[in-house]
Amino acid sequence: MSNIRIGLVGLGRLGMTHATNIAKNIPEMDLVAICSLNQDELTTAQALLDVKETYLDYQDMLASPNLDAIVIVSPSGFHCQQIQLALEAGLHVFCEKPIGLSLAEIDQTLAVINTHPHQKFMLGFMRRFDDSYQYAKQLVDAGELGELTVIRCYGIDPSSGMESFVKFAANSNSGGIFADMAIHDIDLIRWFSQQEINRVWALGKNAAYPELDQVNELETGTAMMQLSDHSMALLVTGRNAAHGYHVETELIGTKGMLRIGAAPEKNLVTLYNEQGVVRPTSQNFPERFGQAFLTEMKAFATSIIEDLPTPISGVDGLQATKIAAACQQSFETNEIVEID
Amino acid sequence: MSNIRIGLVGLGRLGMTHATNIAKNIPEMDLVAICSLNQDELTTAQALLDVKETYLDYQDMLASPNLDAIVIVSPSGFHCQQIQLALEAGLHVFCEKPIGLSLAEIDQTLAVINTHPHQKFMLGFMRRFDDSYQYAKQLVDAGELGELTVIRCYGIDPSSGMESFVKFAANSNSGGIFADMAIHDIDLIRWFSQQEINRVWALGKNAAYPELDQVNELETGTAMMQLSDHSMALLVTGRNAAHGYHVETELIGTKGMLRIGAAPEKNLVTLYNEQGVVRPTSQNFPERFGQAFLTEMKAFATSIIEDLPTPISGVDGLQATKIAAACQQSFETNEIVEID
Amino acid sequence: MSNIRIGLVGLGRLGMTHATNIAKNIPEMDLVAICSLNQDELTTAQALLDVKETYLDYQDMLASPNLDAIVIVSPSGFHCQQIQLALEAGLHVFCEKPIGLSLAEIDQTLAVINTHPHQKFMLGFMRRFDDSYQYAKQLVDAGELGELTVIRCYGIDPSSGMESFVKFAANSNSGGIFADMAIHDIDLIRWFSQQEINRVWALGKNAAYPELDQVNELETGTAMMQLSDHSMALLVTGRNAAHGYHVETELIGTKGMLRIGAAPEKNLVTLYNEQGVVRPTSQNFPERFGQAFLTEMKAFATSIIEDLPTPISGVDGLQATKIAAACQQSFETNEIVEID
Amino acid sequence: MSNIRIGLVGLGRLGMTHATNIAKNIPEMDLVAICSLNQDELTTAQALLDVKETYLDYQDMLASPNLDAIVIVSPSGFHCQQIQLALEAGLHVFCEKPIGLSLAEIDQTLAVINTHPHQKFMLGFMRRFDDSYQYAKQLVDAGELGELTVIRCYGIDPSSGMESFVKFAANSNSGGIFADMAIHDIDLIRWFSQQEINRVWALGKNAAYPELDQVNELETGTAMMQLSDHSMALLVTGRNAAHGYHVETELIGTKGMLRIGAAPEKNLVTLYNEQGVVRPTSQNFPERFGQAFLTEMKAFATSIIEDLPTPISGVDGLQATKIAAACQQSFETNEIVEID
Repeated sequence: MSNIRIGLVGLGRLGMTHATNIAKNIPEMDLVAICSLNQDELTTAQALLDVKETYLDYQDMLASPNLDAIVIVSPSGFHCQQIQLALEAGLHVFCEKPIGLSLAEIDQTLAVINTHPHQKFMLGFMRRFDDSYQYAKQLVDAGELGELTVIRCYGIDPSSGMESFVKFAANSNSGGIFADMAIHDIDLIRWFSQQEINRVWALGKNAAYPELDQVNELETGTAMMQLSDHSMALLVTGRNAAHGYHVETELIGTKGMLRIGAAPEKNLVTLYNEQGVVRPTSQNFPERFGQAFLTEMKAFATSIIEDLPTPISGVDGLQATKIAAACQQSFETNEIVEID
Repeated sequence: MSNIRIGLVGLGRLGMTHATNIAKNIPEMDLVAICSLNQDELTTAQALLDVKETYLDYQDMLASPNLDAIVIVSPSGFHCQQIQLALEAGLHVFCEKPIGLSLAEIDQTLAVINTHPHQKFMLGFMRRFDDSYQYAKQLVDAGELGELTVIRCYGIDPSSGMESFVKFAANSNSGGIFADMAIHDIDLIRWFSQQEINRVWALGKNAAYPELDQVNELETGTAMMQLSDHSMALLVTGRNAAHGYHVETELIGTKGMLRIGAAPEKNLVTLYNEQGVVRPTSQNFPERFGQAFLTEMKAFATSIIEDLPTPISGVDGLQATKIAAACQQSFETNEIVEID
Repeated sequence: MSNIRIGLVGLGRLGMTHATNIAKNIPEMDLVAICSLNQDELTTAQALLDVKETYLDYQDMLASPNLDAIVIVSPSGFHCQQIQLALEAGLHVFCEKPIGLSLAEIDQTLAVINTHPHQKFMLGFMRRFDDSYQYAKQLVDAGELGELTVIRCYGIDPSSGMESFVKFAANSNSGGIFADMAIHDIDLIRWFSQQEINRVWALGKNAAYPELDQVNELETGTAMMQLSDHSMALLVTGRNAAHGYHVETELIGTKGMLRIGAAPEKNLVTLYNEQGVVRPTSQNFPERFGQAFLTEMKAFATSIIEDLPTPISGVDGLQATKIAAACQQSFETNEIVEID
Repeated sequence: MSNIRIGLVGLGRLGMTHATNIAKNIPEMDLVAICSLNQDELTTAQALLDVKETYLDYQDMLASPNLDAIVIVSPSGFHCQQIQLALEAGLHVFCEKPIGLSLAEIDQTLAVINTHPHQKFMLGFMRRFDDSYQYAKQLVDAGELGELTVIRCYGIDPSSGMESFVKFAANSNSGGIFADMAIHDIDLIRWFSQQEINRVWALGKNAAYPELDQVNELETGTAMMQLSDHSMALLVTGRNAAHGYHVETELIGTKGMLRIGAAPEKNLVTLYNEQGVVRPTSQNFPERFGQAFLTEMKAFATSIIEDLPTPISGVDGLQATKIAAACQQSFETNEIVEID
């Protein structure tokens, strides 16, 4: 079989991560076309990655006869439409989370996906592909922890990004911290537990940046969730970690527990200096999840090449967004929200 | 000033910890009398600790003319009455948590305490006196973490105790896991945050020992709490930790975070063996909190000698029990409970 | 420029690691030919990696008109001759450590390398390319540790390999543990310190496998070294680590110290089980140094493409072998050995 | 039996540690008398610890009829004479390491000790009494590590003390870093291995404080040692650790290895701040070994009360000093030194 020819839309930081992997690190894929509203981004990426076709318009890219699949890394508000257009153009689709902003549009997009059963659709929850998460998943599935009772998920961005987020939030809507960030943790809870989430209560507090209260955004939020088998999930989501990019997951079972990323160490170096004994930490998602982004895209390639179901489906995306929305509603009402 | 003469009631594991400290490790205190319903315990303790007076009856001990203070380490159901009688006998009182089982009897006991303002009353929340907790408290109070936003507390007993707990629970009432165990964590939340707790939602699951469902007991519970300044608290309480005695507290603030007992290491030894790189862990509360129990009792002595307020008051005990009761009610109703 | 066309000799575990990287993970390189004395290895690798040319004879491979460079991963005894032949055939050469077994043949090989200045020669000390070692090197070079005073290097293979080594050693000569294993650590000492090693004393002990005494092999050895600036190096080399593959390097300077691989963690997972708090560990060199092997080969490609000096020269190989030989001599005589 | 009545000489930092333990924390001992050349120290300690008798002259203290035992914490140069005088006065003796400065005077002191077999003599190697070291010793003696092959010992003082040491060294003689500091590590090697040390090579380097070269003192030294069963010991001794008081011991055996104090954590707190993930560290010997000093002195009391041999004998002191002297000689000659 010849290589999978990719058209990619969205050339922000994550877009460039995917573009670089496709162009340089996955022999089975060729980065044939890139699309962005920003000509400078196109020019830079084309030079760097030696891409043949560049497009300012997404539908123009879809009209190219040289593509097998589309990788969507554009702002979330474009996802649903871009998924639908790509599927209708007969192409496979990889889309970054979330599928869409509202449950209504996601439902509609799932219907479109279902009417194209011979094209692959895969959603980008990269954490599942991280070596440490894979290792943990194997232990859980092998019963090493016994039956799970509690799952704790932290996802906290580095405080170095707070200033720019506050500016962004003054004029834009992130969708709320639960949909914007905790959605990864919600997916992990579903993936590890193989349960659905029934009830949530969410809280939030702005302490360092009280101005976020005005725009209904959160610096830090928490949620507690009851799962269908009565397991419990605890979630901390935030944007203000002084030590870096803190993604941590804990699984407590009847026979043992484990933590992924409790530190979260940048590498195998330990410093002994005036501060004490120090483990340097990961500072951002490309650093922490570089291997996961690559493995994820390889999994998409494998699904196409071997005509297998993709590991992350539209339903996974729908459920995660549904629960994130419930968290947001719970935070706004300060009451428990049931998920049907 | 001569030494403080102590009468101690209750010679279980914790009772013997306090008795040994008073008899052997605190020069300012003498263990003059001990009381237990169990003659064997009395005989053993008397021989071991060289105690002059032994009593099968608590009121007989109170009648001794040789006492300055009473240390109560009896089952919780006796606490309120024993506190009252000791105070009425003119003695200072140190009482293990909780003050009592019901809010009504605790309220009444507080009234008695208030009518004896010249006698010291101190409640035993030993964790506050642990060196690591003291170190953390100083950092928090010095502002090193900025403003607190999230507090996470774990208190999980070793699974080695599960079998005997299941037997105990078949015939007895622990008061529920929140009142029995999480009360320490609740006190820590109040101590670190200097806030009151307004709303709680609590969950629970029995997985390894489903028979606990029958007796309304829990193997593992969680709770989320909203504090008066909108800070958030997350709590895991359990009886089934394979690795030992897991008491951990995390404080997340706007400038940094810290964890106490994340491991929780038995000592400074690291093993490199077929399992990997292993830190042996504490297995029980006397091992983990030996230093704290001693420092706590010394603090009681200092309060008496220097006529200072005790560091932990009856109100601290009342509030902790009130919140534990709210957790239990929330778990039973699966609804948020407000604390007035 | 078109891709670098590689012929690779030696298809053992490390040979397959390099072959796979060249074939699958380095777009700038093509694996055109493979050579092995073992037809089964050739057949397997050809199928797995889609290689066009296979050779049972090294000189036949050199005669292929389709090659730009040779990668040598054969047994050490063949290295010198294979380097010389490849250079004389006009090809670039990457060779796994060591260059050769005796200082005499290495000296002669260096002379051949010097007479082909327009062909690249690079020796494989992969540890230098590991992300953690790179991070440490940058800190050292930036002066973060001040002036180095002590370097400690551990390289201990997992005990899982002991049985097969004992069988191997009964009939073969590894060259001694210092030349076979510690040579990596010796290179690191030179790399970090930028000093030469002047004096060494080496010791050894066989405890679990005393039969190794008969064949002049070692289960565990140590060495202390004095560097040209009077810095000190301590080295432990072994074959019997119960917990896995233990490669650790410590750098002590006047302003701080650091350790690489003190644990050495397999990933970011921490287990809490009956053993205590456990970090699973790397079990072998492909697991621990997978990223380093890839980066190393990419560096070789870059040297060719951009016509730059290779990062590891023949002199680096000569010096490391010289010091390893001094260690071996010191162990055998139990006296300090000077290196001129 | 009535309490052991102690006279203590030397009221520096370590002297006050012992004095406080005897006066406040060991019920079986009474601190009856203290002796110092410094009247201010005497006055302060008397007030603080409520001591009856104070002496500016050691022989005057020995003349007191109220003493059972002498605790010697004076400068090392006085030890031999003070031991001898105390024994001749019929008293038990606890003496801080070392017994004396020269092997000749130590030999003579051992002869005096031997002529007083009914009086206890104990040397102060407190590390043996540290809980972590005790735990490790039990594992070793139970065979958990198999047969020992390598012992690594670090003892590095915090750099906060460097400035004052450089001033001290300008006018005084510490006895050399091996006798002054590494003697503790040498004792640990003998204790864990139950072997004698046969051959040593020692090195040293002054980097931050080259002026120490002028006074024959060392900022950092290393030594390698061959033990009687051919086990190997590696030693780093220093005065310049940026992160605090670094005492670490590693034991490598055929079945596993362990490290004591690899971090060396101040307590159970982990910080997550701008530096990364930080374990605060012990800053000095009273902080790190507070428990060990107390347990050590209790062991001395038990030896007297139960008429048992003391756990650390004069021979232990002689051997440690002998090896430290060999290290110093080896450093000065840059040759291996044999110990007979």
